[in-house]
Amino acid sequence: MSDAAVAISRLREEGATIATAESLTGGQLAARITAVAGASAVYAGGVVSYATEVKISLLGVPEDLVAAHGVVSAQCARAMAEGVRGLLRTSYGVSTTGVAGPDTQDGQPVGTVFVAVAGPVGTEVVRLALTGDRAAIQAAAVDGALSALTGMIRG
Amino acid sequence: MSDAAVAISRLREEGATIATAESLTGGQLAARITAVAGASAVYAGGVVSYATEVKISLLGVPEDLVAAHGVVSAQCARAMAEGVRGLLRTSYGVSTTGVAGPDTQDGQPVGTVFVAVAGPVGTEVVRLALTGDRAAIQAAAVDGALSALTGMIRG
Repeated sequence: MSDAAVAISRLREEGATIATAESLTGGQLAARITAVAGASAVYAGGVVSYATEVKISLLGVPEDLVAAHGVVSAQCARAMAEGVRGLLRTSYGVSTTGVAGPDTQDGQPVGTVFVAVAGPVGTEVVRLALTGDRAAIQAAAVDGALSALTGMIRG
Repeated sequence: MSDAAVAISRLREEGATIATAESLTGGQLAARITAVAGASAVYAGGVVSYATEVKISLLGVPEDLVAAHGVVSAQCARAMAEGVRGLLRTSYGVSTTGVAGPDTQDGQPVGTVFVAVAGPVGTEVVRLALTGDRAAIQAAAVDGALSALTGMIRG
């Protein structure tokens, strides 16, 4: 089973639901989840907040958090995960933010990624330092997000 | 150039922006767009409205439209495209809704897909009758959405 299929299976057993909030992965996390037949039993949907304004207006990431820490930060990942969980009223919210390249962003090097999982018992944030080209970094960020999610469900 | 790269290049020339609203493609349309380096110049973001409640609450698809026509309908595709365009305040909104399978939905056979593009001069909806497995139908629906988008920008 794929990472996504394992996560979906665990969420079904728990009777839990999930939503995604993506920046650098740009829909790939949602796509990985919805590639699994039966995903609709647990996956409500998500927001691809590629532009900073969308993170603020739709996910409710505070403007002063962005000003203080930038969008490539643990704080922003946390606010995105908690924001989408509240917006879509799901058990879990999973987020990704980071620098896919080719250019650096907010003074952060290419490959700097933060993933967060917000759930019933709190929020966890993981920092990843990824290598490779744009596609490899995006794919590895999705892997990291699914791994963090599975870890929190299991925990 | 990929279909997505062509669309992004045209949108850049126009100084236009775009947002996505996806149901059966579940993030794959966004992923195809954000796989292109430089997508951030035109792509604001999008909503994956996998659950019907998300189509209603976040994209503003009217509840009575869903009751009358179902979510696999030209009317729903149109409302999703116009809804995300308004929500993210972009020049264009592109949507997908349909049946990826393996099960039929709302009395519609697997492979029935509607894509819509809402732009400055109106909204166009295209009906597709796709064949193949779940992955093939999702990928062909993304192709159809990008093709409809490119057609409207060109027109």
